[in-house]
Amino acid sequence: MTPKPEPMNGAHSLVRTLIDSGIDTCFANPGTSEMHFVAALDRIPGIDCVLGLQENVVTGMADGYYRMTRRPAATLLHCGPGLMNGLANLHNAMRAGSGIVNIVGDHATHHAPFDPPLAQDTDALARTVSSWVQTSQRSADVGRDAATAVQEASRPGGGIATLILPSDASWNPGGQVASRLPVPGPPPLQAQVIDAAARALRDHGSEVLILLGAEAALEAGQALAWRIAAATGATAMVEFPCGRVARGRGRVPLPRVPYNIDMALAALDRFRTVVLVNAVPPVGFFAYPGKPSVLHRDDAVFHALARPEQDALAALTALAEALGAPRTGFPDPGPRPDIVSGPATPEGLARTLAAVLPDNAIVVDESVSFGRDFYAHTHAAAPHDWLHQSGGAIGIGMPLGAGAALGCGRDRRVVTLQADGSGMYTLQALWTQARERLPVTTVILANRRYDILIGEYANVGATPGPTAMEMLDLGNPSLDWVTLARGMGVEAAQAATLERCADLMAQSFRSDTPFLIELLI
Amino acid sequence: MTPKPEPMNGAHSLVRTLIDSGIDTCFANPGTSEMHFVAALDRIPGIDCVLGLQENVVTGMADGYYRMTRRPAATLLHCGPGLMNGLANLHNAMRAGSGIVNIVGDHATHHAPFDPPLAQDTDALARTVSSWVQTSQRSADVGRDAATAVQEASRPGGGIATLILPSDASWNPGGQVASRLPVPGPPPLQAQVIDAAARALRDHGSEVLILLGAEAALEAGQALAWRIAAATGATAMVEFPCGRVARGRGRVPLPRVPYNIDMALAALDRFRTVVLVNAVPPVGFFAYPGKPSVLHRDDAVFHALARPEQDALAALTALAEALGAPRTGFPDPGPRPDIVSGPATPEGLARTLAAVLPDNAIVVDESVSFGRDFYAHTHAAAPHDWLHQSGGAIGIGMPLGAGAALGCGRDRRVVTLQADGSGMYTLQALWTQARERLPVTTVILANRRYDILIGEYANVGATPGPTAMEMLDLGNPSLDWVTLARGMGVEAAQAATLERCADLMAQSFRSDTPFLIELLI
Repeated sequence: MTPKPEPMNGAHSLVRTLIDSGIDTCFANPGTSEMHFVAALDRIPGIDCVLGLQENVVTGMADGYYRMTRRPAATLLHCGPGLMNGLANLHNAMRAGSGIVNIVGDHATHHAPFDPPLAQDTDALARTVSSWVQTSQRSADVGRDAATAVQEASRPGGGIATLILPSDASWNPGGQVASRLPVPGPPPLQAQVIDAAARALRDHGSEVLILLGAEAALEAGQALAWRIAAATGATAMVEFPCGRVARGRGRVPLPRVPYNIDMALAALDRFRTVVLVNAVPPVGFFAYPGKPSVLHRDDAVFHALARPEQDALAALTALAEALGAPRTGFPDPGPRPDIVSGPATPEGLARTLAAVLPDNAIVVDESVSFGRDFYAHTHAAAPHDWLHQSGGAIGIGMPLGAGAALGCGRDRRVVTLQADGSGMYTLQALWTQARERLPVTTVILANRRYDILIGEYANVGATPGPTAMEMLDLGNPSLDWVTLARGMGVEAAQAATLERCADLMAQSFRSDTPFLIELLI
Repeated sequence: MTPKPEPMNGAHSLVRTLIDSGIDTCFANPGTSEMHFVAALDRIPGIDCVLGLQENVVTGMADGYYRMTRRPAATLLHCGPGLMNGLANLHNAMRAGSGIVNIVGDHATHHAPFDPPLAQDTDALARTVSSWVQTSQRSADVGRDAATAVQEASRPGGGIATLILPSDASWNPGGQVASRLPVPGPPPLQAQVIDAAARALRDHGSEVLILLGAEAALEAGQALAWRIAAATGATAMVEFPCGRVARGRGRVPLPRVPYNIDMALAALDRFRTVVLVNAVPPVGFFAYPGKPSVLHRDDAVFHALARPEQDALAALTALAEALGAPRTGFPDPGPRPDIVSGPATPEGLARTLAAVLPDNAIVVDESVSFGRDFYAHTHAAAPHDWLHQSGGAIGIGMPLGAGAALGCGRDRRVVTLQADGSGMYTLQALWTQARERLPVTTVILANRRYDILIGEYANVGATPGPTAMEMLDLGNPSLDWVTLARGMGVEAAQAATLERCADLMAQSFRSDTPFLIELLI
């Protein structure tokens, strides 16, 4: 006798539709209004659920997952304030061009009008970080909306799709599973832009910057850009807010547009033409009195060879062919650096990292002020991917590292370079790293102050007095990161020298669990 | 020779205006776009700056400060994502009827159109939690806008006022200090509402509920409500989401509307009339299938004696006089309970707390599921104030405790009853407690799971399977709160029994610094 099938509610249709649409991972921090969704995840196998102890950990993990897999994961966030807590890393994900399917619970449709204490304008909150927002009003809509959400988050160039799920749409019967929707292709390239870029490169190649972002900063895009640069005398660079860059031996030793406004202006001053490949015109992270907002020459001409959502490889291939640029080798980055000894310096840490980094590692960089010059000294490291802080909302490093490790099936070593002040925003991520036994080595750059702000304060034209230092100094009391990590189940040790840091890194690389190094800088 | 006065910029005018308007404390987590504001705070004495390591700590502290002082503090938040991180506790503050003046930095007006990586819709974000939002477009506007912000945050019934400060409005000359604006009085009471309430109380007093919130839940309001209740046979209660309640010996032993929907429906079923005093009609925190949204009888008649922004004491006084209700003593709550021994139970912890609580303490309650019944067993404690989780956004306890301690000049002992799962949201608050040497004793209720959700899951009609438990269980690995606290400079110890907890509490009360007790429950 076949058991009678139970009636499908909205939550069941959601889970089945997500699975059918290719979602295999859900980063979660649920609340009461999401209990039927949790129950459906429990009942229907196919989605791995990963708990974060604060929502910004959850959303940062989803970003890391996408950056490594190029496929969206789902998040499960609690209504209103739960979404609020996760917005900052959704902002970062949006700026990195990642794709995420947020499932945000909400009050039952009949309950919301009574303005219960937890009621919030979830739609308005979601719109600040999302390219697509939809509230499923009825259980029959949930499947269709979920399929659309996955489609939107899978678009070329990424997309933050937020599905708001009132609890009655979740618990009511009448759920209908929707089929996977086709992923839209990238918008077509424009031949006249390719022609114009080719003309500029032919005519005055040495004055042309090829600026790479998103997919163009991965291995194949870099190789094509290098081929064009080598044939024309142009320069290839990675844009500053780039989500992921392929680096190390066998890749092109590309520089990145500097963060510092004066250095960026100097670095870009000679380029009369900028060819954008999945990148946008470079703009200062912040404005400063008397300094320009844009980092390029006022008279620079732009060719948007591929917008962030267009096919960078096709565009670069077409450009290389139009130029008849031959395939070519990459410059030799020189020998792999040796471990440096003594107290940590930015260059010393970068060289030490390059010395010990295993093949195919992932470097997550929220080093903030200390790490501005890491690039130059790590070109000769083993091949690796480097994930950047793209949106400027601090507190992404440790969640991003966790999500990247999960996205790669725990098969690749992650090294997170984490400034201490920023790290305190989302230190709860260490607990998930321990729980999920993730191969993540976190190096805390412990200067015990908001060093970037002490630098920025100097631009005001003064040295910080006691009141300002009260807001810029983290040394009273000192944060003890070794102890904090152990409190969340992550083994940890302190390093006062780079050789000790190298030893601890090497030791951690032999384990398949997380480790934290508090490096005094 | 008199030194030439330096030209006043917008930031200077902001600080001088805030000081002139009565702001004496600024809870802060600044970023680059706020450096000129930081410099002005440095140069112009008069505002104490308190650093929080994540913005939800900052905003939660400002809420605690208001609840104890009934005066707004300022916050200093970084543009866009900085505000995002602090929204959840601003939501709680809004729901508690607190007043806060948020100063949120933003990109320079000429820079924002270039959409730099950190650009966000700060106005839209602020509006989700604010009753007043204004962007100062020019330095000349900053003083006037700041004075208005303080006025709005000082309204009866509170107000979250958010002033968005583009960095050029801060750094440009032309700042103009504005004078303090008068605080608006409460809207007038309506005589016919008082008459109608008096009539109902006279006619069928035993069927009348007097529901108290906000100011009405403090000492004077309670006493008046009790006088009315004693004369008419009515019942006085505190609404569930009430920010602060005066409790203990010498106060009225008021019950609070239960959180649990079935218990709340049962508790309120006999009241055909509800007199609202700074309270709103009681509504369920969440909806459940087949259960009503409102907690009162369908046929209940409401009299809004005083809306949250109206004068509760005047309203209650007028009502008491209309009824000719004589002054009366309060019921004796019985002897102060003794310390309970053995493993922690909710009742045991409540009685133990009541046994050891010093005079004039402040209890901050984010005990969530474990603490639903604390009220009944603490009426006979020494007089104290009890601060509730009013908005349902978890992660308020430890910041609220810090802000309350600062608001009371470090003169009153704070005991924070903190559920472990919620505590992980804002554990960074412990660092501020250590840095500011605050007399706060935090009792972590360590059950190592989201117990409230395991209870809620049962309402779905099933026991959680492995996938659900992955999202509801915090025990793998166990959070070690003693170690976490020490990592942030707070002394701590574990208690497996209530007598040990009592010893540790008593010991901590003799010190003027923070202490954390991990109570295994």
